[in-house]
Amino acid sequence: MGRTSDARERIVRTAARLFLTRSYTSVGVGEICAEADVRKGSFYHYFATKADVAIAVIDLHAAGLELRLREADAADPAQALRGVALAVGRIQVGFEERFGQVVGCPFGNLAAELSTADTVVREHLAAVFANWRERIAAVCRRASAQGLLRQGTDPDRLAAAVLAHAQGLILLAKVDAAPAVDIAEGIDDLIAAHLAEGVTA
Amino acid sequence: MGRTSDARERIVRTAARLFLTRSYTSVGVGEICAEADVRKGSFYHYFATKADVAIAVIDLHAAGLELRLREADAADPAQALRGVALAVGRIQVGFEERFGQVVGCPFGNLAAELSTADTVVREHLAAVFANWRERIAAVCRRASAQGLLRQGTDPDRLAAAVLAHAQGLILLAKVDAAPAVDIAEGIDDLIAAHLAEGVTA
Repeated sequence: MGRTSDARERIVRTAARLFLTRSYTSVGVGEICAEADVRKGSFYHYFATKADVAIAVIDLHAAGLELRLREADAADPAQALRGVALAVGRIQVGFEERFGQVVGCPFGNLAAELSTADTVVREHLAAVFANWRERIAAVCRRASAQGLLRQGTDPDRLAAAVLAHAQGLILLAKVDAAPAVDIAEGIDDLIAAHLAEGVTA
Repeated sequence: MGRTSDARERIVRTAARLFLTRSYTSVGVGEICAEADVRKGSFYHYFATKADVAIAVIDLHAAGLELRLREADAADPAQALRGVALAVGRIQVGFEERFGQVVGCPFGNLAAELSTADTVVREHLAAVFANWRERIAAVCRRASAQGLLRQGTDPDRLAAAVLAHAQGLILLAKVDAAPAVDIAEGIDDLIAAHLAEGVTA
């Protein structure tokens, strides 16, 4: 592929790295273009605004998450729940290895920074989170149907709790400079508290 | 008090509002001064940098949190745990009433945006979170000593989980534009899953 044809991808991957390791607002279009080795004219051929790049960055990370969730899926619902924790943990360990520190969740970071400032980005992130929550809920419902959940645990509420817990653990690992490997364990703890007695993944 | 003597407080309160409803990076010193009705010279008399204002803003919110935690404290540890959920929920409902939307946790927002960019702010936030976690841990240890926690639940791990859960719930309420009132209920759910059978707050 020639340089022109992969310019869009270079822009998105560069913006993804800069947003994740710094923040959205602190990174300008000029810097993205310079680091991606793309002219501004080319940038504006693909994206009307920096917010449009944010949407593409979110979609890039969402595809990566989908891949990890599929890898960690399992026929047994208790194992599949453990797979959710593993998938999230692996992504964070991967970021830590690449950047030398816990940089946070790409969705959570943008959500914290932009939810009050950009409705389109906020709604796009909300849809990604809703899809992620629904993926977890499907596993929780399977676990519930097989009697694996603690009495009184609603599978949809548990899915929402797992997602929130993952987000909180990732954010606190970022601010505490804590190891990424503990994130999966923290999610596991939450799930374990909602499994019926004697059930393990 | 004259205008000069309360300039510092006006700067901090204005910056707190602007950071919370927008973000740290998108707000400039000039805008803080204009909205606080303070000259730039006066600003730099009190603060060397915008990051110094962020530290003062964090301390302002930490004092507010401390007040709410004290209000919601109780002699009975199960009630005191419910008090933690209530305190966090009340702060978020207060922000929602004031700003017309869930704006997130002032600590969590700054943590997401600045942890990779500013070590001093990150460490200051980490200390606030550590103090908050220790406050919850003290209650969890009291609950554990009275046999109120589920078998296998470590009080310090539970405190870390409660804090992470609160952060995740607040962040997701912000991106989902969900009502702030559900935040306390979500924290309660996590605590309930770790109480011994038959124990309620």
